[in-house]
Amino acid sequence: MKQVILTGDRPTGRLHVGHYVGSLKERVRLQNSGDFDEIYIMIADAQALTDNAEHPEKVRSNIMQVALDYLACGLDPEKSTIFIQSMVPELTELTFYYMNLVTVARVQRNPTVKAEIKFRNFEASIPVGFFCYPISQAADITAFRATVVPAGEDQMPMIEQCKEIVHKFNSVYGETLTDPKIVLPDNSACLRLPGIDGKAKMSKSLGNCIYLSEEPEDIKKKVMSMYTDPNHIRVEDPGQIEGNTVFTYLDAFCKPEYFEEFLPDYKSLDELKEHYSRGGLGDVKVKKFLNNVMQTELAPIRERRQMWEKRLPDVYDILKEGSKKAEAVAAQTLADVRHAMRIDYFVDDNLLK
Amino acid sequence: MKQVILTGDRPTGRLHVGHYVGSLKERVRLQNSGDFDEIYIMIADAQALTDNAEHPEKVRSNIMQVALDYLACGLDPEKSTIFIQSMVPELTELTFYYMNLVTVARVQRNPTVKAEIKFRNFEASIPVGFFCYPISQAADITAFRATVVPAGEDQMPMIEQCKEIVHKFNSVYGETLTDPKIVLPDNSACLRLPGIDGKAKMSKSLGNCIYLSEEPEDIKKKVMSMYTDPNHIRVEDPGQIEGNTVFTYLDAFCKPEYFEEFLPDYKSLDELKEHYSRGGLGDVKVKKFLNNVMQTELAPIRERRQMWEKRLPDVYDILKEGSKKAEAVAAQTLADVRHAMRIDYFVDDNLLK
Repeated sequence: MKQVILTGDRPTGRLHVGHYVGSLKERVRLQNSGDFDEIYIMIADAQALTDNAEHPEKVRSNIMQVALDYLACGLDPEKSTIFIQSMVPELTELTFYYMNLVTVARVQRNPTVKAEIKFRNFEASIPVGFFCYPISQAADITAFRATVVPAGEDQMPMIEQCKEIVHKFNSVYGETLTDPKIVLPDNSACLRLPGIDGKAKMSKSLGNCIYLSEEPEDIKKKVMSMYTDPNHIRVEDPGQIEGNTVFTYLDAFCKPEYFEEFLPDYKSLDELKEHYSRGGLGDVKVKKFLNNVMQTELAPIRERRQMWEKRLPDVYDILKEGSKKAEAVAAQTLADVRHAMRIDYFVDDNLLK
Repeated sequence: MKQVILTGDRPTGRLHVGHYVGSLKERVRLQNSGDFDEIYIMIADAQALTDNAEHPEKVRSNIMQVALDYLACGLDPEKSTIFIQSMVPELTELTFYYMNLVTVARVQRNPTVKAEIKFRNFEASIPVGFFCYPISQAADITAFRATVVPAGEDQMPMIEQCKEIVHKFNSVYGETLTDPKIVLPDNSACLRLPGIDGKAKMSKSLGNCIYLSEEPEDIKKKVMSMYTDPNHIRVEDPGQIEGNTVFTYLDAFCKPEYFEEFLPDYKSLDELKEHYSRGGLGDVKVKKFLNNVMQTELAPIRERRQMWEKRLPDVYDILKEGSKKAEAVAAQTLADVRHAMRIDYFVDDNLLK
């Protein structure tokens, strides 16, 4: 069976380091692994509109930003099809038919939907489109016959919902859709990188993100202001690693070779942690090290981004070509879906049969 | 402003006399009035699938039946565009974007949705697609820029929902959509014709319908078994008109000239009712009169239907041509909607602007 990836992001802001370690980095690795026949990366503008219907300009203006972040991270349009969700209208049609296979009560029980409703303070005023987004995601995944969906742990209930729709569709209309599986990042620090303030969720409105497009001085400022162990007051105090944002970031970003380069007194992250736990290691020293790590990791990304920023018409062409290619694939799946549902009335005069 | 009609039916069974007096008859009158620039009659298969997802064959097989009923009643493809909903995929895309403008709580308050949930014994297991059908109907109505929606009184909350979506869309994205109005049948007996058993709703499963395709002997059998006044036991007893199905049907179908033809002892329906109320008029006599009325009203419909049944490939062509024409109109509205939402990224290189 063909191995196909579908993944993507909502264009509601520039992407940050949480996106990078949580998915982008892995995406690039998978892209370059040679293990996949097709890779589709979706800029989910239509999904972003489900809870930004009154701010379409925010979504629109971030499409290019996200595309730049993608290219900056090393997604390669020769290997990965980067496309804009709303430019593939077949997805809305698949959503429409899948909506008949899911009950309202089932969506209400979806933990991701519950959590998002809470995070967004929606409660009773949740828009129907937002409520239905697990179904829309199932359309996105199945349209490309994705076998693998690299995503964060928080997306597991969405994939479960998708699998249920696939099974239900196939049992009612005959084997048609492809069953996907989720692939989680194997580094637990990457599952959900906290904000620089230690809060569980990075968000633009909380101002606690380090962006992929961040300038060196801003990266430094943010790293130096990072939340650590609030009880680690004097250098000699023992410090806590657990829940210490600086160490979580090191878990996510540090490579062994950085010690030799920036902190030769230590051989490994374990040794550094051990010293910090024991006492005698100050936050500033660790933060300076993290800053060097982050600067080294982010510099090539920022530089590639700046290069692409000068070539916006080329980025536009990448999105246009990618969307065209994605639409052709989705249209074929939709034709299969219509055939299975036998609503292909005007194909071969079927309605007369 | 152009005057445009959009209306239609779910293809879940052959159409019956309730559909005829409640909408079809009026539709034909409006069609022939010359007051409308465009008329769209939709066979709502996609809507029917929202609560028949597991029985697609039922929906599919009734599309031709409904088309035959339309042509039988006098809908003229030269004047009215008859089309199949699912063959206009633009409707699903409009639905998708309108879903962002309506809250879950708002749909839950919709009295038509509430009533339908109750009628279908759905409760918590209501499919999402069915739950969203007021939004899908708004897409149907606005796609054709309908100004007039002829429908039954029970559809008023649906039109209200549509108007809300139109106002919301226009206020968020700028004036784009056309505000529709509902036109109710002016004969109150036609608003909701009861079943022959006196039950408020005609339904195939209750077996209480007279179909447009019904044979003369079956019409007679059904009329003669009709529910009347259960306390009107002997001919001399006073009878009740209110809630008496035979009289409700006479209200809906009788024309003054039928008295001279079939019941010359009476000059008008008022005179007949008066005698029945007073006592001395038997049910059988009134039923025989109603049978003559129904036979006269339904004979030309049945005969036209039989003629079209012999020309199924022509009916197919009518649906195919109508769907093509409808799709072109809906595509233009969708282009306007996308333009208003500024998700027309690849039109005139808009994304670069």
